[in-house]
Amino acid sequence: MLQVGFDIGGTNIKVGVVNEKMEIVASRREPFPTGEKYEKVADIMEELVREMAEELNVTVSEFQSIGIAIPGSLDPECKIILDAYNLHFHNVPMKQVMEERFPGIPVFLGNDANVAALAELHCGAFVGSKTAVLMTLGTGVGGGLILDGKMFNGGTGHGVELGHMVLQEGGERCSCGNRGCVESYCAATWLVRQGRKAVIEHPLSMIHKRANGDMKRVTAKLVVDCAKAGDYIAKDIFHLYLGYLSSAIVSICVLLGPEVIALGGGVSLAGDFLYRPLRKMVNEKSFFKGKNQVVPAKLGNDAGILGAAMLKWNAEQSK
Amino acid sequence: MLQVGFDIGGTNIKVGVVNEKMEIVASRREPFPTGEKYEKVADIMEELVREMAEELNVTVSEFQSIGIAIPGSLDPECKIILDAYNLHFHNVPMKQVMEERFPGIPVFLGNDANVAALAELHCGAFVGSKTAVLMTLGTGVGGGLILDGKMFNGGTGHGVELGHMVLQEGGERCSCGNRGCVESYCAATWLVRQGRKAVIEHPLSMIHKRANGDMKRVTAKLVVDCAKAGDYIAKDIFHLYLGYLSSAIVSICVLLGPEVIALGGGVSLAGDFLYRPLRKMVNEKSFFKGKNQVVPAKLGNDAGILGAAMLKWNAEQSK
Repeated sequence: MLQVGFDIGGTNIKVGVVNEKMEIVASRREPFPTGEKYEKVADIMEELVREMAEELNVTVSEFQSIGIAIPGSLDPECKIILDAYNLHFHNVPMKQVMEERFPGIPVFLGNDANVAALAELHCGAFVGSKTAVLMTLGTGVGGGLILDGKMFNGGTGHGVELGHMVLQEGGERCSCGNRGCVESYCAATWLVRQGRKAVIEHPLSMIHKRANGDMKRVTAKLVVDCAKAGDYIAKDIFHLYLGYLSSAIVSICVLLGPEVIALGGGVSLAGDFLYRPLRKMVNEKSFFKGKNQVVPAKLGNDAGILGAAMLKWNAEQSK
Repeated sequence: MLQVGFDIGGTNIKVGVVNEKMEIVASRREPFPTGEKYEKVADIMEELVREMAEELNVTVSEFQSIGIAIPGSLDPECKIILDAYNLHFHNVPMKQVMEERFPGIPVFLGNDANVAALAELHCGAFVGSKTAVLMTLGTGVGGGLILDGKMFNGGTGHGVELGHMVLQEGGERCSCGNRGCVESYCAATWLVRQGRKAVIEHPLSMIHKRANGDMKRVTAKLVVDCAKAGDYIAKDIFHLYLGYLSSAIVSICVLLGPEVIALGGGVSLAGDFLYRPLRKMVNEKSFFKGKNQVVPAKLGNDAGILGAAMLKWNAEQSK
């Protein structure tokens, strides 16, 4: 039982063939052809599938499904890419386009954050869970929900946007137009912004030194590393960040009571330095003391491929 | 097909017999015997059931189930009342106690907010919906979730506490111990607090006049009525309230994308004066523009009885 999983991003098209043990037995990576029409992208995708079939010495028809993780919004039936800004795709009937190229093989689309949560359910942090939340802390804050043991695409089929829950009424303006969104305080970008301020305002700080006084060299990792090394300014920034992040997690916990909340994205790799104080804060703040398990996501870069390969399974659960 | 539904509160025990058309065909109300042990409460409940059977000229065994809405927390199996502070009930094995009194009739317990959402699903604001949220604006803020067309009791079986989502990081202290909870800003109590301040700070305001300068006479309804009548101070308070409430609703909308959000409790009765500006704000703030339907809850005082009568149905869906 082989499934194909695509993970389409603005930089790369990644694809893998996944077997029933959730092992990636063949894979490819191609640059995303920015500016090209979707038919060209479909040409590349078709070629990659045929190459992998050849590599595995199977016929294409032995692939049970083709799943595609998309960084954007889909119609409620998950047939059409409504808007994927990084890909410059708008109203692209991707399911139909791919099914025409592979007659007899069902094609499934999914939002990339939802798909990553699905992968964690099958072979990552959510194995054995029925209610779980993936929260990715990157340039923005995204995430996916598992409810009743299945991927949840929002009650109206428009996905979930946990980065746009309100954390600070009337707070900082978010790119979505609203104020005080979780994304404005919990994205890695928030750490970068505070680190850059520190470069200007605190010339004696370790952040200033390690960035060589150059704001552009400040990354979230640099700020976290300075905090780990004991710099007071960086520790202050990180403590504030933990306050925001723990409150965002609490909001999700009291509404859904998930068995597991997993964190993904660069910031989530900070280890015990992040999780120990974060768990303590979540526990102190949450109405449900001791019921909330906060862990790192397990699958990292392969989550898109693995989850996309499970989209057929997920669709069958929802029938 | 007759079901019995109990709605137990700190003031009254209410009970009704509900037929398959969701009509209450018999009902009773008794004061809750504060301070008595649970066996005494069960005695009263048993007597009420027998009385109603007699009134309807049926045998008790014709009741298909007994459902009980509880203002408190239950164990994940919904057999034991863990804590119902208003009733002074702690670790009460209510399901067993009632099943012993009515052999052969299955007994079901549910949290009252969840049960009210279940009632709205069957004969109220949620008919035909698969994903819906009930938010009750009273002394506190509570609520219940419908997910996948069923009552949702939280992923770990401890209910949902949407009043304790964080709306204002680091904001006002809430009775739960955390800061900035939705309950601290969206409960009717918030309107009362602001109205009382106005009595002191604004002696020329309509709020001061209508309350006769007496803080104790300020209610949420008085503040809303003054705002409706055009008083500037009251309008300011109400506008701020709408800001908080719309943000709380947005947080739920972006996470779950419910088809319907219904508001219950006294404040929810303010009509178009509430819903027109509230819907506009929710739409402006939400990531999902135009996807969120905000309506008044329909069932009011009968929601507990009707929802409790549906607990057997709900349990069968979850199998």
